Amino acid sequence: PTLQKSPALQRLSIQSLIAVFQRYAGKGGYNCTLSKTEFLSFMNTELAAFTKNQKDPSVFDRMMKKLDTNNDGQLDFSEFLHLIGGLAMACHDSFLKAVLS
Amino acid sequence: PTLQKSPALQRLSIQSLIAVFQRYAGKGGYNCTLSKTEFLSFMNTELAAFTKNQKDPSVFDRMMKKLDTNNDGQLDFSEFLHLIGGLAMACHDSFLKAVLS
Repeated sequence: PTLQKSPALQRLSIQSLIAVFQRYAGKGGYNCTLSKTEFLSFMNTELAAFTKNQKDPSVFDRMMKKLDTNNDGQLDFSEFLHLIGGLAMACHDSFLKAVLS
Repeated sequence: PTLQKSPALQRLSIQSLIAVFQRYAGKGGYNCTLSKTEFLSFMNTELAAFTKNQKDPSVFDRMMKKLDTNNDGQLDFSEFLHLIGGLAMACHDSFLKAVLS
């Protein structure tokens, strides 16, 4: 099904967030959540720069555990949004530092 | 300052979320938060379809109160992200209904 093509949702990037989530969630198993493997595939591809810098591989287990608030071993879309929110906050903080310095 | 042009942040739409927020937050007063007026301007422009359908104008006061978790009369970026998260969840739910029907 095509996502609603409302200009507002596009400008607010909501459709692309759903599209990125579904691209990885749909790789296998239940295709509405990210399994651990799908989460790692997302991290390795979409956040390669961050992932390559990690010396301690257990960081991804800890991230997954922290995000998986209902402890079902999967990340649903709402749990995934917390990851994006955290990234957005970090990015906005560095943007503010640049503006206010 | 230019936002980091990292492809990952672009694909994850984080830069456009920050850009949309800053466009309205920067209209007046302290330009790192959305005042009530800037929030209404955002709603009228970016979510015009939703806004036009609201019979009860007090819905925006209630939305602002619910989002303004630290009660300072402003929406900072993190509080704004909750609005986007809510929209994204609603949009993803309707996407799932379409997929699973």
